[in-house]
Parts: sequence; structure tokens; C-alpha cells
Amino acid sequence: MAQRLTSADIKGLFEKCNNWGKWGKDDQRGALNYITEKQVARASKLVQTGETASCALPLPVTPAPDNPTPVTHLMVQSGHDAHHTPLPYSGDYFAISFHGMATTHIDALCHVFWEKKMYNGFDASEVGSHGARKCPIDVTRTGIVSRGVLLDIPKLKKVDWLEKGEAIFPEDLDAAEKDHKVHVEEGDVLLVRTGRAANRKAKGGWDPAEGLPGLDASCLKWLHERKIAVLGSDAVSDVMPSGYEGLMLPVHVGTLVMQGIHLIDNGDFDSLSEKAKKHSRYEFMFTMAPLILERGTGSPVNPIAIF
Amino acid sequence: MAQRLTSADIKGLFEKCNNWGKWGKDDQRGALNYITEKQVARASKLVQTGETASCALPLPVTPAPDNPTPVTHLMVQSGHDAHHTPLPYSGDYFAISFHGMATTHIDALCHVFWEKKMYNGFDASEVGSHGARKCPIDVTRTGIVSRGVLLDIPKLKKVDWLEKGEAIFPEDLDAAEKDHKVHVEEGDVLLVRTGRAANRKAKGGWDPAEGLPGLDASCLKWLHERKIAVLGSDAVSDVMPSGYEGLMLPVHVGTLVMQGIHLIDNGDFDSLSEKAKKHSRYEFMFTMAPLILERGTGSPVNPIAIF
Amino acid sequence: MAQRLTSADIKGLFEKCNNWGKWGKDDQRGALNYITEKQVARASKLVQTGETASCALPLPVTPAPDNPTPVTHLMVQSGHDAHHTPLPYSGDYFAISFHGMATTHIDALCHVFWEKKMYNGFDASEVGSHGARKCPIDVTRTGIVSRGVLLDIPKLKKVDWLEKGEAIFPEDLDAAEKDHKVHVEEGDVLLVRTGRAANRKAKGGWDPAEGLPGLDASCLKWLHERKIAVLGSDAVSDVMPSGYEGLMLPVHVGTLVMQGIHLIDNGDFDSLSEKAKKHSRYEFMFTMAPLILERGTGSPVNPIAIF
Amino acid sequence: MAQRLTSADIKGLFEKCNNWGKWGKDDQRGALNYITEKQVARASKLVQTGETASCALPLPVTPAPDNPTPVTHLMVQSGHDAHHTPLPYSGDYFAISFHGMATTHIDALCHVFWEKKMYNGFDASEVGSHGARKCPIDVTRTGIVSRGVLLDIPKLKKVDWLEKGEAIFPEDLDAAEKDHKVHVEEGDVLLVRTGRAANRKAKGGWDPAEGLPGLDASCLKWLHERKIAVLGSDAVSDVMPSGYEGLMLPVHVGTLVMQGIHLIDNGDFDSLSEKAKKHSRYEFMFTMAPLILERGTGSPVNPIAIF
Repeated sequence: MAQRLTSADIKGLFEKCNNWGKWGKDDQRGALNYITEKQVARASKLVQTGETASCALPLPVTPAPDNPTPVTHLMVQSGHDAHHTPLPYSGDYFAISFHGMATTHIDALCHVFWEKKMYNGFDASEVGSHGARKCPIDVTRTGIVSRGVLLDIPKLKKVDWLEKGEAIFPEDLDAAEKDHKVHVEEGDVLLVRTGRAANRKAKGGWDPAEGLPGLDASCLKWLHERKIAVLGSDAVSDVMPSGYEGLMLPVHVGTLVMQGIHLIDNGDFDSLSEKAKKHSRYEFMFTMAPLILERGTGSPVNPIAIF
Repeated sequence: MAQRLTSADIKGLFEKCNNWGKWGKDDQRGALNYITEKQVARASKLVQTGETASCALPLPVTPAPDNPTPVTHLMVQSGHDAHHTPLPYSGDYFAISFHGMATTHIDALCHVFWEKKMYNGFDASEVGSHGARKCPIDVTRTGIVSRGVLLDIPKLKKVDWLEKGEAIFPEDLDAAEKDHKVHVEEGDVLLVRTGRAANRKAKGGWDPAEGLPGLDASCLKWLHERKIAVLGSDAVSDVMPSGYEGLMLPVHVGTLVMQGIHLIDNGDFDSLSEKAKKHSRYEFMFTMAPLILERGTGSPVNPIAIF
Repeated sequence: MAQRLTSADIKGLFEKCNNWGKWGKDDQRGALNYITEKQVARASKLVQTGETASCALPLPVTPAPDNPTPVTHLMVQSGHDAHHTPLPYSGDYFAISFHGMATTHIDALCHVFWEKKMYNGFDASEVGSHGARKCPIDVTRTGIVSRGVLLDIPKLKKVDWLEKGEAIFPEDLDAAEKDHKVHVEEGDVLLVRTGRAANRKAKGGWDPAEGLPGLDASCLKWLHERKIAVLGSDAVSDVMPSGYEGLMLPVHVGTLVMQGIHLIDNGDFDSLSEKAKKHSRYEFMFTMAPLILERGTGSPVNPIAIF
Repeated sequence: MAQRLTSADIKGLFEKCNNWGKWGKDDQRGALNYITEKQVARASKLVQTGETASCALPLPVTPAPDNPTPVTHLMVQSGHDAHHTPLPYSGDYFAISFHGMATTHIDALCHVFWEKKMYNGFDASEVGSHGARKCPIDVTRTGIVSRGVLLDIPKLKKVDWLEKGEAIFPEDLDAAEKDHKVHVEEGDVLLVRTGRAANRKAKGGWDPAEGLPGLDASCLKWLHERKIAVLGSDAVSDVMPSGYEGLMLPVHVGTLVMQGIHLIDNGDFDSLSEKAKKHSRYEFMFTMAPLILERGTGSPVNPIAIF
């Protein structure tokens, strides 16, 4: 196991592994800039069988320990009453506060602040009661298409899932690459599986206040070196608790704020894991299209891996 | 111009151009069955430059003539107050009744009924106050990836947009194919552009009660013969008014109910049109991932075309 | 303690203590008909000191064991951003599904069914996806003003609150009247205190699945004889579990459906109890004005007692 | 007609007719302090016949020129599906942004700011993304009960309603008092009828951007002298446009911010007007119980007048 760093060390990584200004002082897209058109075209070449896997949980409409404010899903019209209208139809309505712990969503770069700043130094006050004037989710309006890479830590560790509070260190990422015969590169969408979704299905999951498995903040250096475009997790990327006093979600801060890396939280990589295992192939074409919520701080998403 | 049919003729097409039972009496996926894994793999081969285009409007948060019940978009926390919390963050909330006339969305097969039945003969009463027990949108949970084809009718007709109430006939579809040097085939996602999104941007759009451009119901036979998987429009596929007495949205009925073809309503194909024109290429890789709203009647979507 | 009845006995009370047809076959107001203008004027004469007490809990915005789907309360505009608008203002939004276990609300007569019927024999199907065509809450649009009477069972029993699952029997109601020197009469709004609100404040309350204190269904006869207009509780009137096999909320059925008595659920009578005790007076002027939600099944309310 | 004042004059009234500090520097209730218990008891003595009148419009669920963002009203469960559940019931849900132009609501003192301050000098930033820390609506949790007085300006002017943009001056208020044989006094809830609700019913109402009838800002002095507790209108109290350059809603500012007078907007005083006329009596017992929305900026209400 790695020598644990201190909170001061992690704050040092915030300074060192930092992309502010890298793509200009007005840039609001951050590490998405790593995804060039060439990268998209290259990703399409990975498709072989045409199998697709969803990387998302269903929208969580039922209260659960990790879902205190579920999605409201109601009908505007059902099939019973439909016949009183000129064109019989059914329709529904949903209301969602998607930055929960049970909704698969993408975090925009405006979602988290460090010392009152967001990515590229924009001020937190740019996010007001009418939404985000800087770094909103609609910077992704043409979609995120790139090479996806899965690092399946439970497979590496030969367990069903990591336990709550169990941390993943840089050497685990290295070991997973070796095991999976894949190498994370510039512009990749990196999905790190902890098995939390499997635990949720089998055991009902954890109240996040009790902890979640995820990356130790020492991984920030690794992520920065590899120049990934997007980071995804079936938990919330950060191991919880973080293990660093005074730092609640240091991977969130280090990626969203410092490196401009959009995050996918609460994915479900179980089906993806099965397909990867079946084909012994941990790279695939990845596509995701956040809703165009102008000034939004993120979006629920259903990311798709194509093999 | 085509010889117009009668309402009785269109009802005849409902009978003749019908896929009930074609994929088994329990099938809930309809024409999505045309999309095989081979089809997905074939679609990926269309990618050349790696350019992507969104086919969606932004979520419509402002009332408009075609948007009487806009999306509610509110903040759960803004950047001003963020600093009172252990991890400063911003977050938002939205509430949406997406089957409107200004939200880019997919219609599930349970969305429309004809004589109290939905696709494959399932009863309308299967859609109750807790949602759809048959043909919900979550049949698309692994995404819709296939060859996309754009038929750009304003380009064909050398106009900026079709006028409200202006109908597109089968011979227009044939002419567009010829003009675009493309042929619609089994499993394709067919996007028919009317220019309505362009009109909306330039003129504010029409109240749908006044009419919208779209397909004449006589196109149902054409669509059935070509075995498309999904039909998309920048209006609502149907020309409005339909021109057939007693038939309000006959293309909706003929596709969703009779042929099991999912529909994309209120897309924005303007950027797509530009890219297609630039590359003289009207086929592309198409990806769309509806949210996994179990028992839902559809989903807001952001379909992506990859060139 | 009373001889417990059987489920069959309670069903017998549904038949015997029944007001269907009493005010005409089209009546949708039920026992509100007991409140005459004379009754209102009489109630106003009860006011002596001018003290007022709210009988409501605050709208419950936080998840709790008895509140799995809390009220959504969000800001439309805060004070921070207000200064960018011509008239600086703040405003908010709330979304509520009020028939929960932690919102003080009134149940309309359409809220509960017995053998597919609501009050006065109207069919359950009159409540469709566009709301209630019969017995909606807007029958109370001019407010409910009458004599209020508090029966404070914890005071009677010299406890802080009744325990979950603890039943109140007709002889308890009689004893409370005797203790309080008050007699429940035609047209009264009867509030029965169990102390649940006090328990909630002190202990966090119970998950209703574990039980709640309330009236045993044998009280239905008593309620019918006294001709009360409205019944209110700081729990949900019914003791839970009911103690009668196959009958989930028999007081709800026996009052709303059979007698046409509107119910107030989840009130907070603690402040009322204090004032009643202070003045040794358990009758007061009662006023309540449900929101005019046409076709609604009830409304959140803030009932006011005036001493 | 009165000599019109200038914007500078009105700003002078903001200074002169001002209650900041009057009830202590921490006071958050403003002119509600005028309503003593004695006042409540006195009000109850006004009840003679026991007739009640609602002063509210139904919750506005349909888009209209003065209602671009209507209340969302949906069913949680209808009568059709009720029979699949252990206790068959129906229930609904509503979502409301109540500070619109068609919802009868009360404005809390935190609703409007002047020079970044609210009533009693509290800073606008006290209203953040979690609501109002100062002057929220829950200061009214025990209800507002007092003498109500109606000044029925259309009756005075012998018209069905005032026209949009038509202003009411202090001498009109004096004339209405004389006509109605009533005198507005300390602690009263003053309801000023413009007939807008009648116009809405007959003609569909006005888009507020076109104007609304209401009080000229010169009335601020009159209101201050009379020491009213609450001001209500069937429009929004302010005449629109205000007629004073640079002052958008000066009556809102002068009452809410300067005098601490809560406002009732968008009432419906038509039924009240009829009863007042019938009884030749323009004073009555007034009761209103805002929902206890902690940190809220107001509440939808259904105020009740009792004759």
C-alpha cells in the first residue's frame, strides 16, 4: 500500500496538477479540450461487435439511504383518461435534483468551488440564482465522444465490490492497466469501477454518510499526467471519507476545479464490466450527451459504451 | 403534388403498414428490432472526420407560443451561499413535462393510442397513474446507435424553411434521397428536416395551433417499406393540421402505434444540415441515449450525429 | 377497556353510520352541511382574549422517517442576484405532495375509496389523471369556520403522548369531554390530540409503518351520533395498525367515505393544548381556508384556533 | 384629480413614511405589530350573519397572459389505479411559484428590496439560496386575524372595473370611506378593490406588461397615517405603470420595505363586494393563515371574510 500523503500534500497537488490558463483565460471546457475530432474518429474505430452497454442507473424514483430526495415522476395523462381528448395519449413529468448520490449524472465545472473559485479561476459568485454564467453544462452540447477505458478494481482485487471507505491508490490504477492490458491516454474517458452499483443491487447500498469506495486523492497526480478528458465512477470518484482532514471531496476539487475534468457520478458499470471481461477488452467507443440545460450545473446522463 | 388520400385511405394504411406481432406478441421494442449489433458496427464505420453535431434544442425554460409550460429550472444552491457548507458547491433542479412542442424528446411507444390500444395491441389502460407497464421508454436503456440519415427538405426545395401547414409527400422523400445521394434502409434513424428550428430562431416560431410543417400521412407506406427504426423531426413529424378529417396526428398513430417506430420530436437539425452540406454526406453515425425513466412515456434527449 | 369489535362489526358501522343521500344524491360537501351560517356566527362569539394558535406543522422540507418525500423548496431569485433586475426582489417555489405523514393537510372526500366508491356513492373513476370531478377540495373554497373542540387525550391520561399503536376508544372521548367540561355537538370541528407532534419534537417521531396513535374504529358510531363536521388529528385519526384484519385505515373509510367528514391529518395541537389548559377552555373559534385547488384531493392547511 | 408628485417626492415618502426601528431593531413583523389580541377580539365582534366570502382566485393551473408559469397540478394516484393498493386512495401534487400575477398570495417582508435592503434595514443578502434568514413568511404562523375593510373603488366610480393603468389617489380612498360609511383604522387589513378579477372573468384580463389598475404611490402617506397592518388588492396594489420614472413598483417598496406592511396580491374581492353591498357593511372579520413555509418569501393564501 502507498505511503499516505497529508492534507498539505493534497493541497500541493491542487497547485501542481492544475490546468488553469492552459487553454486560455476564458476557457470553460477544461480537459474536454483534450478530445479532438481526430480523437473522436479514432474512438469510432474501436467498435467491433456493435454491442452497447449503458453506464447508468435508472432514475431513482424511490427513497433510499443514498437517495433522500428521489426523482418525482408523475403522469400528466394516463391511458384511462386519454379517450376524452381528441388525440388519445399519455404523458409524464419528472422533477429532479440530479446531484444526488443515486442519480447517474455529469458534474459541470461550476459544480464545486475551492476558495470561492471554480475552474480557471472564475468566481463562485458567477453561479447565482439564475444559474451558472461560467462553466455551465451546456459547454458539452455537442456531446462527449471519445475512447472510453474501464479500470475494474473489483476484478483486479478479485472481490465483488470494494467496501465503503476503501481507497484506490495510484498503484492500483497501474495494476489494473497491467491486468486489463490497456493504457490510459490523453483525451480518454476513464471509468473506474468500485462495484458499488453491484453492492446496491445485492445489499441496498450504503448511506454515503457511512462511506463510499473511491479514489484516494493521491491519484490526482496520476490523472493529471495521463491527461484524461472525463472521469467516471460508479460511486462519486472520491473515497469517502477522504482520509485527509479538512478536505471533504479532494478528488472533486482536484479534478473539477483544478484540472477542469468533468465527472460522472453514480454510474453503473456492471454490464460494462461483463462485456469487457467477455471480450477481454477494456477500451471502447464512449458516447454521452448531457441535456442542454443552459446555465445548468450538470445533467442526468445515460452514457453508452459501444464494443 | 401527390394525389391526396382520404381519411379512410389513411386508416387503411394503419391496417396494412402494421408491425403488430412481427417480433412476437410480447414485443415492446417495435422497429428498434431492426437495429442489430451488425447495424451498430456498420454505423461506426461512417465516422470520418470526428465532427459531432447536436440534434437538440436547449431545454426550453422560457414561455413561448409553442412552449406554454416551460421547464422549471431552479437552483438548489448557488455560489453565493456555497461557502457556508463544508464542501462549497452549486447545484440545480429541473422539472419537465417533456412532451411539449419545444423540448427535443423521444416518444415511447406507449405515448399514443388508437382505439384504446398502443403498439402490438397492448391496452391503453396499461398506462396508469404510476406510468406505463407496457412499452415504456426504458426499452431503450442501452441507447439507440445506428446509421442516421438526414433528408433536408428545405435544401431540396431551396427555401429557408417549410411554412406552417406545409406537407411533405413520399415523392419529396424520394427526391431528397436523389438530391442527397443517399438511400434510406432497414434500421436507419431517419431525420426529416423542415427548417422549423431555423424559423424559431429567426421568427420565434409558430403556435402549433396555427400549424407546423411535416409529413403527410401518405408517407406511412414509404416509412414502412424502408423499415426505418426511428423517425425524427425538427417539428413533430406530422404536418399540422393533418389534412385528414378526424385524424389529428396520423403519422404519430401510424408510426408509434402501428409500426412501433419511436419518434424524436422538436429536434434542431440546423447544425446537422450545415455539416451534411459541407461534407456532401447525408449519412452519419447516430447516437442517442434516453434517460432510464422506468415506466416513462419518453425522455428529453440530446441526439448526436458523428461525421 | 372497551370490548374490541371485529372487522365485520366495523364494516357494519360503515353501513349504519352512513350519510350517503342525506343531503341529496348530488351532494359533494358531506358533513360540512352541518355548518350553517348560524353556526359560524355562534363560533365567533367564543372569542374572548383574541389569542390565536396555529394547528399546523411547518411544511416539512427535510427527509424524515415519516417524511420520505419532503416538500421541495427552492428559490426563484435570491437577494444576491436581485440587483440585476429592474425591481430587486426575492421569490421562491415549492412542490408538494401533501398527503404525506408530515404535512398538515385536509383530505377531500375524494381522497379515499371503499369498494371503488367515494362519499355519496360517486365512482372512484371520477378521479382521473386530471383530478377529481366529484368531491374535490374546492367545495371548501369559502373556508371552514365553526366551533372547534379539542379533546386532549394525553392530558386526560396524564402522559406526554400516546405511544405508537395506542388506540383511543369511545369511552376515552367521553372521559375527555367530562374532564374538559365540553360537549361535542353538531357542526363542530373536532380535534383529537394524541401528542404525536410533541413526540416528533422530542424524539423525532415514528415511521408510520411502525404505528401511530389514533382512534379505534369503534369511535365511528360516536362521531356519527355527534354529527361533527370535520375531524382533525395530530396523527392521522386512525390508530395504526388498525387492529382490524383487512381494514387498513377504517376511520378514514368510515369518515371520508361513509359519513362525508373531511379530515385534517398531521396537525400540531401542542400550542392549542397549552392555551386550552391555560384558559381551562376546550372550545374556540376555528378557521381554516384550504387553497382553492380545483379538482384537488386536498390541500396543505394552517388551521387557526381563536380564543 | 390629484396633483401628481415626482419620483423625488415618492422617494421622500420612503424616508418619511417609514417604520424602521419602530418596533425595535430586530423586529421582523412590521405592521403586523398593530394587530393586538384586543384587535382580534374586536374583529370577532363584527360577525353578524355568519356568511363567509373567499378573497382568492383558484390556483391558476392554465397558462394565461397574466400567468406565464402556471401551477403544475398532477396526480400521484388516480381512482383508476387505486384498487391495486391496500388502501385505495387518490392523491395529488402541485408545484407553485406563487409570486406570479394570477395567484392570490401574501408577500413576506423579505420579498422586495430597496437599495439592497429589506424592511428594518436587513440586508438583501439575508435571502440566499436556502431562503430568507430575515423577515420570512413564517412570522405569520399563527395567522392574521383582524378587522377587514373593503374599499370598493369601482362601486365608488360606478364602473365594472378600473382600466389597466388607472390610478387610485388618496382622495379616492377618502371618498370611498365616505361612500361606504367606514373608516380605516390602526391594525386593519385594508382590501382595495379595482375590479381586475371581474375583468379577468369577463375579458380574460391583461398582460401586466400592458398595465394594471392600482394605487398611485402618493397613497403611501395615507396608508402610513392610518397604520394599517396589511394591504390587499385584486391586482398588485401598485398601479402599473407607476407613472414615476425609475420607480417600478413604488407602493411595494413603500409598504413592504419602508412600512413593513405585508401585501396580498391578486385577490378576488368580487364575492366580498357583493356581500358588502348586500349588507351595506364594508367592515368584517378577516382571517388568513399563510402556510408555514420556513424561510419562504410568501405563501399562496385563501383569505376569508366573515360577515
